[in-house]
Order: sequence, then structure tokens, then C-alpha cells
Amino acid sequence: MEDLKQQVYEANMELPREGLVTYTWGNVSGIDRSRELFVIKPSGVDYESLTPEQLVVVDLNGEKVEGDLNPSSDTPTHLELYRAFPEVGGIVHTHSSWATSWAQAAKGIPCYGTTHADYFYGEIPCARSLTPEEIDQNYETNTGLVIAETFMGKNPMYVPGVLCANHGPFSWGRNAGEAVHNAVVLEEVAKMAYRTEHLRKSVEAASQDLQDKHFFRKHGEHAYYGQ
Amino acid sequence: MEDLKQQVYEANMELPREGLVTYTWGNVSGIDRSRELFVIKPSGVDYESLTPEQLVVVDLNGEKVEGDLNPSSDTPTHLELYRAFPEVGGIVHTHSSWATSWAQAAKGIPCYGTTHADYFYGEIPCARSLTPEEIDQNYETNTGLVIAETFMGKNPMYVPGVLCANHGPFSWGRNAGEAVHNAVVLEEVAKMAYRTEHLRKSVEAASQDLQDKHFFRKHGEHAYYGQ
Amino acid sequence: MEDLKQQVYEANMELPREGLVTYTWGNVSGIDRSRELFVIKPSGVDYESLTPEQLVVVDLNGEKVEGDLNPSSDTPTHLELYRAFPEVGGIVHTHSSWATSWAQAAKGIPCYGTTHADYFYGEIPCARSLTPEEIDQNYETNTGLVIAETFMGKNPMYVPGVLCANHGPFSWGRNAGEAVHNAVVLEEVAKMAYRTEHLRKSVEAASQDLQDKHFFRKHGEHAYYGQ
Amino acid sequence: MEDLKQQVYEANMELPREGLVTYTWGNVSGIDRSRELFVIKPSGVDYESLTPEQLVVVDLNGEKVEGDLNPSSDTPTHLELYRAFPEVGGIVHTHSSWATSWAQAAKGIPCYGTTHADYFYGEIPCARSLTPEEIDQNYETNTGLVIAETFMGKNPMYVPGVLCANHGPFSWGRNAGEAVHNAVVLEEVAKMAYRTEHLRKSVEAASQDLQDKHFFRKHGEHAYYGQ
Repeated sequence: MEDLKQQVYEANMELPREGLVTYTWGNVSGIDRSRELFVIKPSGVDYESLTPEQLVVVDLNGEKVEGDLNPSSDTPTHLELYRAFPEVGGIVHTHSSWATSWAQAAKGIPCYGTTHADYFYGEIPCARSLTPEEIDQNYETNTGLVIAETFMGKNPMYVPGVLCANHGPFSWGRNAGEAVHNAVVLEEVAKMAYRTEHLRKSVEAASQDLQDKHFFRKHGEHAYYGQ
Repeated sequence: MEDLKQQVYEANMELPREGLVTYTWGNVSGIDRSRELFVIKPSGVDYESLTPEQLVVVDLNGEKVEGDLNPSSDTPTHLELYRAFPEVGGIVHTHSSWATSWAQAAKGIPCYGTTHADYFYGEIPCARSLTPEEIDQNYETNTGLVIAETFMGKNPMYVPGVLCANHGPFSWGRNAGEAVHNAVVLEEVAKMAYRTEHLRKSVEAASQDLQDKHFFRKHGEHAYYGQ
Repeated sequence: MEDLKQQVYEANMELPREGLVTYTWGNVSGIDRSRELFVIKPSGVDYESLTPEQLVVVDLNGEKVEGDLNPSSDTPTHLELYRAFPEVGGIVHTHSSWATSWAQAAKGIPCYGTTHADYFYGEIPCARSLTPEEIDQNYETNTGLVIAETFMGKNPMYVPGVLCANHGPFSWGRNAGEAVHNAVVLEEVAKMAYRTEHLRKSVEAASQDLQDKHFFRKHGEHAYYGQ
Repeated sequence: MEDLKQQVYEANMELPREGLVTYTWGNVSGIDRSRELFVIKPSGVDYESLTPEQLVVVDLNGEKVEGDLNPSSDTPTHLELYRAFPEVGGIVHTHSSWATSWAQAAKGIPCYGTTHADYFYGEIPCARSLTPEEIDQNYETNTGLVIAETFMGKNPMYVPGVLCANHGPFSWGRNAGEAVHNAVVLEEVAKMAYRTEHLRKSVEAASQDLQDKHFFRKHGEHAYYGQ
């Protein structure tokens, strides 16, 4: 558990270093699937003063198992994603500015190029807005459920991120570090897609062939990118 | 008074660190309500050479009570805000670039998402332009009065900032540090709102339910965000 | 002369620090009016390796008086500006990205707010394009002459900068340091004006009253800004 | 060969320093024409951990001649460019954000000003999209062939860069360092051209006279820029 805490701590600290968070607007968690426990940032604690010991351990019923501080108020969202996506080992939420701008416009990010296709297979979707009832009761849980709904019939490991309408992005990966990596890519892709749309009256997504080529040269059994 | 000076000094020094000021384009003040005195940055002094001792103490009649240097030329604006908003303990003025761009367009910032709703309840308004007479005589005082006019019937602690048409933002809080915090948020929110409006032909504000949820999970008696 | 060299050296070194130059794309000069000599950056020398000794001294006939290296290829432009504007003590040329974007669009920067009005009285003009003949022969001299033409009937100390169509900005001041200060302001103002124009279908310049107020509270005999 | 490795290593390390790469999204190579061997970054290795010894040596048949790691997956593209452009001594590929945005919009960058004309003579072209067949088989080789096709009848030393549709930029030079220099310029030029197009309904390229003046005052036998 100390290893996982250290890993999740380091992943959290990467958020300010990569320019993805202002103040406390972000949180990373990581799960130990064998023990069904996940580690998450405490709520409202500044990154400068965060220590690995402050991280909170939560079980898959959402009960705090270890830690003196309250877990992130987004903990129920992380919980629902761990339940819905069994291959996910780490989750990140930020208000990073480009991805959040797309989320505020309630618009999914089309795949305009190979940078996107290298990591996300097809559009990064925007989840539907929550109903007034879903907002009023169990808001953070419902945020997770609506994300899961968005991925019905989709492989979350092929599209490791989502936008929440009028809110911001969530991303994930096999572990906390990969989830942060995908958060950085999502932000970069959101920035370039914005500019792409402003360079032409109408832009089209990259061809399916090009998307396949780039995604599958890095992922799956025929991958030949890297060592 | 030395404590307040130190606090206001540190809040001033956060402005260049957060990228909110170019040269001397900003100032922070903080008030001691029990003594009816406020501390403010001296006029035209570079942040690199600013020391806590250089800060100027002013009373609620606008008279300098302590200090060798002239107070910021915006001092009469701060004064009017302290008079109009009794809960305010600190005030910031900057020409931070995104917020100033909205101010130059004389346009309030709609609440497009939860980042905004976490700190500002509803639109961040743009105060009306001053009349030629208001500009000609007691310009800085009138700037404060027009802001106060903008908040008639509004709770300034729920919307802790404003844009001055063709000028720039003011923000405030319970103390100088919180005022700077709100200035940072205002700048970030202004940036994301600009981009949001450019991603769609017509964008709508976040639903009232979502705004309520986010503002009141952080503020007021039912808040559950943080420790 | 060594004092002036040191001053001009420091002003040059501020350009990369303020993010106004990529590689060698900029140069600062400063003049000693009593001796009718000016000091300027050598051509094509990197800022990292620049030393005060490498600066070149040129007289008002454009002859090199001191220095082992060739002066900046823009030297004839500086020369014409020193001839045309007798109050100018320092000149800067950069390709800073926001100001250059306006120059490339061949568009003057309207005064949209007080940040602009604090330093530039009215629009920052864009000089007309050079004719093919003016480009072909004595291009750099003609660049200076066209700037001087742009300021016929205008006070260059009230508008201490200009855009050259399809090229970039020049700015100036009473000395090299002030010229760089104005280059920084010009870049910031260009950025905010761009965004201002994109926030509304049609934006108007700040009122003349507001422009007067801000410019003259900092400049001239009734100034009350600063110490 | 050790000299070339060191040179290519330093050129690679300049990419993150200049802000042109996120994670491993870029690679630089340099060729020894006399030995018909080129040195290139290994695939998927982080810049922080990259050492000169890890660089891979490849011959002009694309065979690895030296090195423990796999060469960049873009190696076949570099190879085709070295074959097609005999004066080229170094090549860079990045996903730098402004240039990639133009590439994603499949749009060449018009020459709007002298910053562009100082380095690139005329438009920076966007190569045509690859056919499904070209993507499916020998994708990276075909990427190089389509770039070469784009430069039929053009001098690649006069336009030392290109955009690949829905992908990103390649640039080159007489050696690896110059290729990186041109990558930095291309990114800056892409940024300013984007903004230029957004400042006017219709913008025109800089006049041919101005383009000639600037390109040829820095290049060719009549150059007079620099020392």
C-alpha cells in the first residue's frame, strides 16, 4: 500500500509540474485491484504541502479505510469509474484549461490528427449534462455513472478520457502515472483541435486509415513503436 | 499593523509570481476593520524592489496615516469598495490579460462551467462606462462608486470580482490573500470563457442547478469541499 | 561612451528575458545626443554570447566609429529615426509575436483600454507598405523614412511605437531602457487588443475622455501617477 | 561518428528546451554524407534519460549499423528525405503545437511577413494526404516519398520545412542544429500566421519584392545579414 501511495503521490505532483492545475483543482487516484482499495488525494490540500502520508485509502464501497483527512470530494466519481472500467488502474480529474473549454462548450474533440490517434482511438466524447435530479442528489456518483453510460459499447482503454459537460476532463490508464500521461495528451490535443477548427471553415477528422495506422502502431499485438 | 503590512506585502508579491502583472500594473490592499485603516501598495514602485515598510497606511477618509511614499493612484477606488462592501477585507486590481480583454470588450463573463461556479455565483459583471464628468473629476473615486452601483442588490461575497469597462478587473475577498486567489481564478475563468465562446456559434451558461451545486458545495453552511 | 554601451547592453539583454525575441530577432540602440553617436547591437550575434564590448558605435552619417563587428542590418532604420525624432534616446526593433501579427495584417492597434492609454496616446499606427523601389534600394533606410512619414504631424513621444507592414514593431523612448519598456507594453497591448476584437462583433475604442485621463495622469505637467 | 552523435544528441535535447515536444513526440537525425550513414534518436525514449550512446546509426538502405535500441519509427521517412534532398544534412520531426494545427487543417502557411521570408522562401507547403494503400503498407516510407513529391521543382534548401496533412511538421537544414533552428522558426511563423489570418477578413501574402529582399539579404551570394 505504501508503494501505491508513493506512486499516486508522484502522479499528483506531476499535475502542477505539467501546468494542468491551478491551486487544488485536480486529483489523481490509483487502485490496488487485488485488495479492492484505492488511494486518492485529500480534499482541498495544496500541492505544495501535500505529502504521501496525507493520501486517503478508500474501499470500493466508498468507505475511508485509512487517512486523517477527507478524501477528494470527487471520490464517488473515481469509485464509479473503477467499478465500471475493470482494466483501469488510475484516474485523473483536472480543470486543465483547453480540455475544460471544450467541456464548457459541451463538445467532443474530433480526431484531427495523428497526435490524437496515437493515444485516443476516435473522438474524445463529451458526456451528456446531468439532469437536475442527478445534480441535486449524489452529484459526484452520478458524474461517474454518466461517464460510464457514455462508454457503453466503447472500450475505455482505447479512449482513455472524457469531457464532462460544463465541467472538465477525466482521464485514466493502467496506473496513476499513465492516467496523468493521458491527461497531458488530452490537454495538448484539445489545444490543437481548437486551433485546427479555426484555420478552416470546415475541417474533417483524419481518415479512418490514418487513425488505425497510428493507434495500432502503438497499441495491441502488432505495435512496433517504442522499444 | 505590522502583521497586516506583511500580509498585504505577500499578497502583492503573489501577483507577479502568478503572472497577473506586467511592470507595476497592479496593487493589493488589506483592511483592519477594527481600526478603520487599510494598507496599500505605493504608486509606481516595481515589485522587485518593494518592501513591507514601503506599504502605505490610509484611513477611511482617504488620508495617509503612515508611509513615506504616495499610495497607489487607485487608492480612492479601494476606499469606495471598503465603504460599500463591509465584509470585504482585501482588494486587488490588475491588468491581467484575459480579464482585461473582456473588460476592453465591455462584456461580463457568463458562467460557463464549474470552475467559475466554484468561486463566482453567476456572471462576473462588467460595470458601466463612466460619463465624461465622472472621468474628469474624481476619476478613481467614481470608478469605485460605479462598481458599488453594479452590485446594488447583489452579494459581493458571492461574486468577488468585477470588470471595469475599457479598463480591467478588480477582485476582493475576506483578506488580501483571498482577494489575490480570486484574481487568479478570474483570469483563468476569463481565458476559458473566451475559448468556450469560440468553440460554438452560441453557447449557453451552465444550468442553474449545476451552478448552485458547485457554489454551495464550497460556500455556506452546507459546504462539504475541503477539510 | 562606456556607460551608454553598458546601458544599451542591458536593454538588449532584457529582450530575451521578457520573451520578445527568438534567436537574434531584435536589436536595441541608444544615442548620446551631445556627441551625435549611437551604440547598437552587432548583426547576427546570439544574446547568450553578447558582451558590452561587442556593441558597435555609429555616427549620424551611418559610419561605424568603433567596434570589430558589423552593426545590426537594421542600423539605417535606427539612424533615420534618430534624425527624424530629436527627443528619442533609444530604439528597439523586435519580431515579438503579437505585435508582429498585427503588422502582418497591416493593421494599426486601436486604443481599447487604459493599459494602452497609459503609454500610447491613441492608435499605434501601421506604416504603409514600401514600394518595390523603396524595397529594392536602401531598404532599411526607407523603412525608417516611411516610419517618419507616418508620424508627420504626430508627437512620437506620445505614441512611442509603430508597426511596419508585413514586418514587425519598432518602439522608442528617452533612452534604451524606456524603449524596451515600451516594446513590452506594445506586445501586451497587441495581445489584449486581438482578444478584445474577438469577443464582440464590433468593438469601439475607449472614449477620448478616458484616453486623456489615463495618458495625462502619467505624462506631462499634471501627472500624478508614481512617486 | 562520435562527433556526429554528439551533434545529433545536442540537437535532440534542444527540442524540449525550445518547447517543441511533449514526452517523446519528436526526433532529430544527422547524416555523414561521405560515409552514407545517419544517426537518429531511438524510438520511445524520454528526453530526460537520453544519452549520446543510445543514438542509432542507420545506413541509406535503412539497415541498423550500430546501436542497441530500435531507431525512431519515423526512420524510413528520414531516409527518403536524405535520398531525395542531397544537400540536407539534418532532419527534425515534431508535433509542435502551432505547426501541427496547420497540418491538421491540411493548409500550407502563406508568407505573411519578413520573419517567414528570412528563412522560408514562399509558402511552407502542406503535402497531400496519403492514400489508404500508402498508409497501409510502408506508411513511414510513403510519408517521405509524398514530401519529396511536394518538392518536385522546388528547392528544399529555400523552403526547409513541410507540413504533413493530419500529422505534423518536418524540417531540415545543412546539419542537425540548423534543422532544429528551422523547426523553431516554423513553429513561430505558424503561430503568427494563425493570428494574422484572424485579424482581417482576408489577408494577403507579403509582396514578392519584400520576400525576395528578406530571403536574399540572409541567403546566397549577396547576403549581408550577420558577420
